[in-house]
Amino acid sequence: MTNRQIHIVELPKGKLGPEHFRLAEGAMPQPKEGELLLRTRLISLDAANRAWMQGATYRAAIEAGQVMAGGAVAEVIEARAPGFAAGDLVFADTGWQDYAALPARHCQKQPRVEPMSHLLSVYGVAGLTAYFGLLNVGKPKAGETVVVSAAAGSVGVFVGQIAKLKGCHVVGIAGGAKKCAWLKEELGFDAVIDYKAEAVGGALKKAAPKGIDVYFDNVGGDILEACLFRMNMHGRVACCGAVSQYDGAAPAHGPRGIPGLLVTKRLTMQGFIVMDFDAEREKALADLQSWVRSGQVKVPEDIMTGLEKTPEALIGLLAGDNIGKRMVRVS
Amino acid sequence: MTNRQIHIVELPKGKLGPEHFRLAEGAMPQPKEGELLLRTRLISLDAANRAWMQGATYRAAIEAGQVMAGGAVAEVIEARAPGFAAGDLVFADTGWQDYAALPARHCQKQPRVEPMSHLLSVYGVAGLTAYFGLLNVGKPKAGETVVVSAAAGSVGVFVGQIAKLKGCHVVGIAGGAKKCAWLKEELGFDAVIDYKAEAVGGALKKAAPKGIDVYFDNVGGDILEACLFRMNMHGRVACCGAVSQYDGAAPAHGPRGIPGLLVTKRLTMQGFIVMDFDAEREKALADLQSWVRSGQVKVPEDIMTGLEKTPEALIGLLAGDNIGKRMVRVS
Repeated sequence: MTNRQIHIVELPKGKLGPEHFRLAEGAMPQPKEGELLLRTRLISLDAANRAWMQGATYRAAIEAGQVMAGGAVAEVIEARAPGFAAGDLVFADTGWQDYAALPARHCQKQPRVEPMSHLLSVYGVAGLTAYFGLLNVGKPKAGETVVVSAAAGSVGVFVGQIAKLKGCHVVGIAGGAKKCAWLKEELGFDAVIDYKAEAVGGALKKAAPKGIDVYFDNVGGDILEACLFRMNMHGRVACCGAVSQYDGAAPAHGPRGIPGLLVTKRLTMQGFIVMDFDAEREKALADLQSWVRSGQVKVPEDIMTGLEKTPEALIGLLAGDNIGKRMVRVS
Repeated sequence: MTNRQIHIVELPKGKLGPEHFRLAEGAMPQPKEGELLLRTRLISLDAANRAWMQGATYRAAIEAGQVMAGGAVAEVIEARAPGFAAGDLVFADTGWQDYAALPARHCQKQPRVEPMSHLLSVYGVAGLTAYFGLLNVGKPKAGETVVVSAAAGSVGVFVGQIAKLKGCHVVGIAGGAKKCAWLKEELGFDAVIDYKAEAVGGALKKAAPKGIDVYFDNVGGDILEACLFRMNMHGRVACCGAVSQYDGAAPAHGPRGIPGLLVTKRLTMQGFIVMDFDAEREKALADLQSWVRSGQVKVPEDIMTGLEKTPEALIGLLAGDNIGKRMVRVS
């Protein structure tokens, strides 16, 4: 039996391309005592995958020659650890391969939900990141204006919908007329800005006429700068990521207006990742489940099929091709 | 009777100089019903005075041809409002002049303290800004490392001393060997960095070997950037001002690492001004009084004499000439 794997040939210095990956065949891994043998089912694609190639972040840097790292929903084939049994579903950093043997303590048991893909979207890192980043960091009040960038992305679609059900005026920033129309028509955003077609600073005057109270930042760079200049007094910026800055060299400068605007408008900017809120995970999942059940939160997903598609799935994600959570079905 | 006044001739486009001011003689103001006639005693000099010339901040912009705005301790000469009497001391925006007539509701009654100058330093905006910015925004814990820039300035001297008495490792960044030696010897800072003599980024490795937990930023610009790169996980940046950016054109760029470092290290940056914490003012003053009485907090002051000295007092402050709170004694 073989184990198909996607290896990193070389770390990208500029834009990530297919030449940085290769499909290889490895041996079938053998689980040691305390480990689980896992079969990968659905691989999660995330902008953070690219950030890991830039150096150490909240995890160690990825190195050339290794199997590409990445989270996935996987099925337990053989359990050599207490508390797990064959057939269980787990979330784990299997990497981009058919099979992995991992210490059970690094595997998070998952419930069976239908469809299984929701474990990676609304009930996974994407949904929880939106939930905690918006509610615990952004802290919007009903009637306030919430702006979210990468609004049609895996996290953005939930940020906008949760902000709507909290009674906020919601503005989405996304690239392309198709995504923008879809955000308004399908997800109920109040206003949208197509950053590829219009200057964000000027468009915000119309889309957020009362200014911005909460900006959920997925992109950094020029869009962050444009939003900072439109923030209201005591506004909050939830810093979730900087997808505009992952796929290339580190940017030469940060946004203008820092720290001047932070002082004059008494703004708070706070970086976070979903693990910071593990203690509140159960409550968050219960809220998300009830909103999905009631139809208040729709779950857009963008699923490709076949392990060999994983490199192009990530490259396309970084270019903004996806609508909703992107994943690859492996088995 | 005449009223000497300092007028703004023209708003500075670049560096502030004596040519932007002129000494003039105005008429003695007449208080209307509800107003107080005030004699200016001590004028407070603040980097914010310069920021007001750049446009609207938390107050309206200053305009050419007006008396220069500025806060002062003043004595009531004639009271045409209930609750005030001749001889009372108040804090008010008298502007740079001998006499002013102001609505009583814009005047904050002050206690008699000895020396009166403490009303502008430790018991004034400087002391309260240090107290709230450090304790309510920075939230240092004993054993953590606190870095403060403009450490020998009006606010910095109190930030460092309060952080010391809370059990922190305290690093001051200031310009010049004299100030740096004084911070260590007189105020008990654990380490100092002379930003005019050494690169701040490299010097921080030695001065803050465990990284920075709280950075109290008075300056913005390159020093803010250098500190961001040395922050610890879950660190806090209290944004108090950006003195490096007031005396010239608006900066072309912000610090590198935003938002990337905020996300990976889960940092919080928060802008504040002292008025945000008015509700806790009494407790803060009680703490400061007890620390001054016990000698745990020393009160460095830098007092010049004569209304005509006010322009050069501000110009020198922006160049970093002062040690401790700068003020001008008018009468």
